[in-house]
Amino acid sequence: MTQLRFALAQIDTCVGDLDGNAERIMRYARLAAHQGAGVVAFPEMTLTGYPIEDLALRATFRRAAWDKANWLATELEADGLGDLYVVVGTVGTDHASDRPRNRLVVLHDGTVWAGYDKHFLPNYGVFDEFRIFAAGDKATVLDIDGVRVGVAICEDIWQDGGPVARIAREGVDVLLTINGSPYEEGKTHTRLDLASRRAAEVNAPLIYVNQVGGQDDLVFDGGSFVVDTDGTLLERSPMFVEHLGIFDLDTSAAHQTPGVIAAQPDPDEEVYTACVLGLKDYMAKNRFSGVCLGLSGGIDSALVAAMAADAVGGSNVHGISMPSMYSSDGSKDDAADLAANIGAHYDVQPIEPLFNAFQSQLSLEGVAAENLQARIRGVIVMAYSNSKGLLAVATGNKSELACGYSTIYGDAVGGYAPIKDLLKTRVWELARWRNRAAAAGMGVGGLSIVGNEEGNAGVPVPDGVMIPINSILKPPSAELRPGQKDSDSLPEYELLDRVLAAYIEHAHGRADLLADGFDVHTVDTVMRLVDRAEWKRRQYPLGPKVTALAFGRDRRLPVTNAFRE
Amino acid sequence: MTQLRFALAQIDTCVGDLDGNAERIMRYARLAAHQGAGVVAFPEMTLTGYPIEDLALRATFRRAAWDKANWLATELEADGLGDLYVVVGTVGTDHASDRPRNRLVVLHDGTVWAGYDKHFLPNYGVFDEFRIFAAGDKATVLDIDGVRVGVAICEDIWQDGGPVARIAREGVDVLLTINGSPYEEGKTHTRLDLASRRAAEVNAPLIYVNQVGGQDDLVFDGGSFVVDTDGTLLERSPMFVEHLGIFDLDTSAAHQTPGVIAAQPDPDEEVYTACVLGLKDYMAKNRFSGVCLGLSGGIDSALVAAMAADAVGGSNVHGISMPSMYSSDGSKDDAADLAANIGAHYDVQPIEPLFNAFQSQLSLEGVAAENLQARIRGVIVMAYSNSKGLLAVATGNKSELACGYSTIYGDAVGGYAPIKDLLKTRVWELARWRNRAAAAGMGVGGLSIVGNEEGNAGVPVPDGVMIPINSILKPPSAELRPGQKDSDSLPEYELLDRVLAAYIEHAHGRADLLADGFDVHTVDTVMRLVDRAEWKRRQYPLGPKVTALAFGRDRRLPVTNAFRE
Repeated sequence: MTQLRFALAQIDTCVGDLDGNAERIMRYARLAAHQGAGVVAFPEMTLTGYPIEDLALRATFRRAAWDKANWLATELEADGLGDLYVVVGTVGTDHASDRPRNRLVVLHDGTVWAGYDKHFLPNYGVFDEFRIFAAGDKATVLDIDGVRVGVAICEDIWQDGGPVARIAREGVDVLLTINGSPYEEGKTHTRLDLASRRAAEVNAPLIYVNQVGGQDDLVFDGGSFVVDTDGTLLERSPMFVEHLGIFDLDTSAAHQTPGVIAAQPDPDEEVYTACVLGLKDYMAKNRFSGVCLGLSGGIDSALVAAMAADAVGGSNVHGISMPSMYSSDGSKDDAADLAANIGAHYDVQPIEPLFNAFQSQLSLEGVAAENLQARIRGVIVMAYSNSKGLLAVATGNKSELACGYSTIYGDAVGGYAPIKDLLKTRVWELARWRNRAAAAGMGVGGLSIVGNEEGNAGVPVPDGVMIPINSILKPPSAELRPGQKDSDSLPEYELLDRVLAAYIEHAHGRADLLADGFDVHTVDTVMRLVDRAEWKRRQYPLGPKVTALAFGRDRRLPVTNAFRE
Repeated sequence: MTQLRFALAQIDTCVGDLDGNAERIMRYARLAAHQGAGVVAFPEMTLTGYPIEDLALRATFRRAAWDKANWLATELEADGLGDLYVVVGTVGTDHASDRPRNRLVVLHDGTVWAGYDKHFLPNYGVFDEFRIFAAGDKATVLDIDGVRVGVAICEDIWQDGGPVARIAREGVDVLLTINGSPYEEGKTHTRLDLASRRAAEVNAPLIYVNQVGGQDDLVFDGGSFVVDTDGTLLERSPMFVEHLGIFDLDTSAAHQTPGVIAAQPDPDEEVYTACVLGLKDYMAKNRFSGVCLGLSGGIDSALVAAMAADAVGGSNVHGISMPSMYSSDGSKDDAADLAANIGAHYDVQPIEPLFNAFQSQLSLEGVAAENLQARIRGVIVMAYSNSKGLLAVATGNKSELACGYSTIYGDAVGGYAPIKDLLKTRVWELARWRNRAAAAGMGVGGLSIVGNEEGNAGVPVPDGVMIPINSILKPPSAELRPGQKDSDSLPEYELLDRVLAAYIEHAHGRADLLADGFDVHTVDTVMRLVDRAEWKRRQYPLGPKVTALAFGRDRRLPVTNAFRE
């Protein structure tokens, strides 16, 4: 009988931060050794952060990552951890083509011991790996104290054939996969189903270690797990927090003994937490300690402010009420109530004098006059950002962004938009969930992802209401002209969101949408709005490319990038 | 002896405009037949426009393109052109995987006759084809009236092996390649060298038909040509204009007889024309007839205004002078002179009253106060855009965009940025070139790409000076505080631009830059500025992705897209 203890180190790395990521690996390796692990596995591209996009193309970065891996191996041994097998992801170089590779290495006995290069390079959705990396063409089985450990990186288990098929033929005691799998609603089940299938295919338990944390517009949810050949869940780490999971492999047992299985959050809590973690990490990794945003009294800015307060505390949120001549008293009160509920700074900056100053020169009418109001607010929000060093957060939701129902350089300004992938109806649902959680005692900053202290319930919310009920119940309005309602310009959100979900999230074409039962007028209206809003979603001006390498289409670097040569 | 006349139809298509593109194909097919051609060849993805990005993934679009190809074949025959072989590019579907293919078809005798699917799918730089298309795996040789015509699509000739190698083994009389090859400075020579090599490889002349015109941030320069097996240039079409070139193939001749070889423009004229064409087509394809922009009296806005006037005429250019308390009298005069020289509308909108209105509420200092000025100007430019239906053009150059030396939502606003890929020193060079051309008699709108009328010299420029000499000679300044100079914040442009060219355009890393002879302080300064400015170049806020398909990273549609279901 051979037993081997695996530690699943679900950690939060930062792209380009070789020093910080290496320190974190050291810390979790020590923790794993302390808990008696023989192997500790980290996520895909742990050392470099993920996804590194075109940073991988920079040779100096690849050299620095290689040096750091060697430093880490040496340091681990010096620390008395030379016996531990430390599995980390990093970037390598294919010396034939001089192109980067997405690599797994094992640090052991003071050396960078074995390498495996990712075989299947995803190039769809958010992934651009075929563009960046050269594909690996070998399967690797490690012999760790007599235990045969097959290894794979993320996409390698999502496609049939390749290294997993070869590993299945060779036979292993366990399949270890390291992943950088971004969060999506409902993906937990998809991953588990897939992993169960692969465990059956290789006839051995599968260990799935995933990254956690936000990186630019991706959120990694962790939720690492181990699944047995018959689909039994043997271990599951919590979502959205760093965690060291433990799995004891017994190679002589037909079935493994289950360990700790973390509970799954409910669907609203899951999405809310993903949005808060994305914002929290974007701020931390880009060195922002506070945010500013316009508070209109509407539901979007209220939810975003609540998320920001949950991420960094109410005292680091600067809400700015910017009423115009068309703002209702109710809206002003709702904005003030929200700020009070979350303990935010609250300033009132009326825009009417500024609007009048512009109008005395420009005499705008119609949509131009409406946009002017939104843009004056954008200038004020950015003035707070610039003068106080705050991150401006945009409050647009996916429904309005999809349809172009926003003012470019106006309400769309900001460095981060926490709810840009939430349809309006989902915004209402999450606001209701947050209020229910507040009523049940979850104060500001009381989410599990903040602090990680036992029993930290956050700062209590007065009367247990975080988001004013009025902001949830009143009909949505941009309040840019008297009596304006969103429904003047858009289908009712309940209908609109169902069409948008089908058209965008499920990629239904026009014929599919009609077959879904939507009427032809609505379908054509929504498709036209969505297709035409593309330029607004980009915001930056297009311009002709005239040199061999330019920005934008050629050069794709992460925004969050701590690499400094 | 077999002779076959090929017509090279270098045309300007619009992405998604199946009707318009088909009409244009009809027109050029008639012209080709009228000139006695047996074959007329159009560029890559002629019918759909190129690059179509994720529009290819929409099944309804692929069906519409297929219907349009059949309509075209029928229409050609009905028009008495059934004998003509019409080679067009379009999108197909791989029925096994239901993925799109980049396809060449031949329309003949009223039917869509033969197909070839692109084999090598570029996925670097501006290209995302591997992401979008399924690769073809066959080589195709057409038999046209006894002449063996090998075919290939663009990238197929840029890589060794694949269909061209197979064609070389089978033997052909001519290799016909259809292309959507974007413009880059100096690419003409690269293409010709490559084509000569392939002509030698297949031991037959090579016909290279390229697209012309602007599509979003790409410009296609045309410059179609035919090259013989020994590298002799047999035909060359002019750059930047639609054109029907003629090549007579004689299969019994060891060497072909050269035809018309268009002259190459000088390098400054070439780049200037590329920028003007990009703007002109962006406007036409997105239905803008006029532009508005801020005229500061500086060189950047002066050059952009001149380009806009050359693209659409001075009377469609709305220049706005927006002086502040820090604007020099010289700057105001230079802006007015420029507007007069190009015949533009010219308004003065002082920003001091607006600045004071904001400051009475916000009391900003330092950079925040500087940004406020730029953002007030942004609001004014967008007010002109919204109220008059004008395209706002941004005037930023590549040097300042690279270094983040601009105000987000301020001077960076606009839908198109004609000089965003020109370094500052190149801006000066092009301004000088445009003045030399004006002095030599090229008036406003006198470029070859506008109108195409013989001897159209454009609207004469007073005194033969288009861009005020002062705008070219004075030290660059943002004029956002007293006595400010760009060189307070950036290395001198002559040095900066050499580092930027090496770092961005030639992808030199830090070690390379030091080996290039740049001092360590400059290298580190420039690299830090460029790497940190990534978020500003994007402008739109990042936000967490929480659904399976979202915008941005998932959904990549062209901005210019005329497809309407």
